[in-house]
Amino acid sequence: MSPATTLDEDIEEGLDAPLATVGGPAPAVRRARAWLSRAAEPGSVAFWRFVEDAGPVQAVRQLRAGRAPDAVRALVGARVEEDATAADLLRAQRCGARLLVPEDDEWPALALHGLVLTTAGEPADPRAHSPRTTALVPPVALWVRGPARLDALADRSVAVVGARASTAYGEHVAGELGHRLGQRGWTVVSGGAFGIDAAAHRGALAAGGPTIAVLACGVDRPYPAAHGALFHRIAEDGLLISEWPPGAAPHKHRFLVRNRLIAALTRGTVVVEAAARSGAQATARRAQRLGRQVLVVPGPVTSAMSVGCHELLRDPDLDAVLVADAAHVVEAVGRLGEDLADAVKRPTSPRDGLSDIACRVLDACPVRIGVSPERLAATAGCDVLEVLRVLPALELAELVQMTTTGWRLAPAPGPPVAP
Amino acid sequence: MSPATTLDEDIEEGLDAPLATVGGPAPAVRRARAWLSRAAEPGSVAFWRFVEDAGPVQAVRQLRAGRAPDAVRALVGARVEEDATAADLLRAQRCGARLLVPEDDEWPALALHGLVLTTAGEPADPRAHSPRTTALVPPVALWVRGPARLDALADRSVAVVGARASTAYGEHVAGELGHRLGQRGWTVVSGGAFGIDAAAHRGALAAGGPTIAVLACGVDRPYPAAHGALFHRIAEDGLLISEWPPGAAPHKHRFLVRNRLIAALTRGTVVVEAAARSGAQATARRAQRLGRQVLVVPGPVTSAMSVGCHELLRDPDLDAVLVADAAHVVEAVGRLGEDLADAVKRPTSPRDGLSDIACRVLDACPVRIGVSPERLAATAGCDVLEVLRVLPALELAELVQMTTTGWRLAPAPGPPVAP
Repeated sequence: MSPATTLDEDIEEGLDAPLATVGGPAPAVRRARAWLSRAAEPGSVAFWRFVEDAGPVQAVRQLRAGRAPDAVRALVGARVEEDATAADLLRAQRCGARLLVPEDDEWPALALHGLVLTTAGEPADPRAHSPRTTALVPPVALWVRGPARLDALADRSVAVVGARASTAYGEHVAGELGHRLGQRGWTVVSGGAFGIDAAAHRGALAAGGPTIAVLACGVDRPYPAAHGALFHRIAEDGLLISEWPPGAAPHKHRFLVRNRLIAALTRGTVVVEAAARSGAQATARRAQRLGRQVLVVPGPVTSAMSVGCHELLRDPDLDAVLVADAAHVVEAVGRLGEDLADAVKRPTSPRDGLSDIACRVLDACPVRIGVSPERLAATAGCDVLEVLRVLPALELAELVQMTTTGWRLAPAPGPPVAP
Repeated sequence: MSPATTLDEDIEEGLDAPLATVGGPAPAVRRARAWLSRAAEPGSVAFWRFVEDAGPVQAVRQLRAGRAPDAVRALVGARVEEDATAADLLRAQRCGARLLVPEDDEWPALALHGLVLTTAGEPADPRAHSPRTTALVPPVALWVRGPARLDALADRSVAVVGARASTAYGEHVAGELGHRLGQRGWTVVSGGAFGIDAAAHRGALAAGGPTIAVLACGVDRPYPAAHGALFHRIAEDGLLISEWPPGAAPHKHRFLVRNRLIAALTRGTVVVEAAARSGAQATARRAQRLGRQVLVVPGPVTSAMSVGCHELLRDPDLDAVLVADAAHVVEAVGRLGEDLADAVKRPTSPRDGLSDIACRVLDACPVRIGVSPERLAATAGCDVLEVLRVLPALELAELVQMTTTGWRLAPAPGPPVAP
């Protein structure tokens, strides 16, 4: 992409080019996704499926030419005529941000695969789709501000969320959790809001740990404005990320749409304080639908700000785990990886110490041509979410590897061969 | 029993008399159990089994004559020569107490049946028995002080236990729980100790609700002495009960032995505050072994007095339920009874609304000759503890009735018969 050319010129040029080369995605792909990120509000199943099926470049071309399906055109509306891509990309560049697209290596594909799966579960009829605020659909692109790699930070990350109207108790606990998780090398992901979110970010920063604020507005104008200094520090040591292009305003419904990303990017969601029927509870339920651990910090039963937490812990369908400190959190979200790491150090079979599911997934991995997690699930006779949960650990243990076609067994080290 | 006669005279006389008549147990039975309650420390599997097998009168006779098994004689030791029964019974009478024996109608047989079952699970070899402090063995008799009937009070009762070194938060919550449970007609059972116990008793008394203090010393000299006024009020409106005869001192190990009764007498145990590895936790674990609900009030994770509570809630084997108020407690321990009460009001079959287990137990009940809960469990294909859990509700719904031989179906009301 060169700002000197127009969007449509770039798109026409990109039609014949491969989507990605060794150097990364084609310029047209990034410009197309920049346009798509402004063209429609995120969270629409129909829109994401359209982009996925047509590919980003074709999707833009069809929309611009008025040849996209009615349901998708309706989502874009009058914005179809506009093109702010050059300005958006320039604005991002000026604040130290970049546009991350699924075609990038850095795209947190594994974490977001949970969203791909939940979207696959949506019905075919667009009228029956989950509403945009609750649909668990992947982003078409992410605006990312900060020096760190998103995929690396998301790999060992935990969401810490809670009430804006938090108490001193909640802020103390969130800050302490953020700090201890940061010390242990875990990324603290939150929403940058007042109260629990800010306390968690600050705790992580104080420990020198990475932290990610997932925003419901442009990464160049983080909201709330009173957190300007906090966001500045996060952008220096961690990442500010958003589905919305630079300059986007923090509309109320965008927070609800944003919440799914906090749950999806992390291995588990810790709720520190939540009122009855609150947003933090909704985030926790989304985490559960995505197969993530729901972890809840209790509080005094006399505190209105802990009522939502206790509701979560009392819900038998949610299977939430009570956590009182960072050690409990790491135990819940990190156990398999650590167990595996130990097992691999032993001189015996690296399979020792693997969970039953992990063994079955490993057995299901082909030797040569990599396959999708869905295929592994079918062969292993387990749930896709279970497969996604054990794959990172198996990869960490160098038992499997990801290829362009999917997952396969890692080549065995084998005995040294004589020259 | 008449204090004018000696123990041995009463015993000789009682040998040929039936254990109980319409008017209650024979005098010799009560005197024998009064002697047994002082002869050996409670909590011994071997001693309880000996009394159960020989019957109380024969048990005393064999012990006094030196013909009891060695293991049992060793438990009694030099006390075999003593006889304080007349003095104990008189002392009890003077403080408004009485000796309740298993042969009495008022004996809380259903509640204590859990202890009979756990004792049946003890090995045959006395050397392998659970230690006295943890053995879940029934009492041989109970000294009861107060006007209420123990069986009636125990029927709808909940234990509220917790730390002696409680915080203002814990005492507030325990008092509030005691009050609300009392208002709803539930009996609050606790240990009369400082801290949570006292707050729960006081809350119940303030609501005009019944409350039971299960003591580790004589009911005429309740401990701690600073709770004199509290115990006086409990004895007026509720019950003070103890396995130890009047005058018995509150030795430390007696509290551990006593704790099993708090768990056994109630439908569930609520732990309000507990330090790590505390007595309240031990009581909760006993409640679980007895098939009772373990209910736990959370607190600030920053409070040492809630660490034990959070440990209980994190224990996957314990299946503890988080409760934040009395409504949660009643929902957990009273649900079946209430559901049944509703179901019975409906014009359709009284079986509507029964749980699966309740239906199976009902189907297992014979029409004429009552059978034991164990027999019902075998027929219904479920656990004896599950049978014991549903029988009270089935009885409440007038679907089953207890006879001298056990449980059977209640006679159907049937259509009115023409004269």
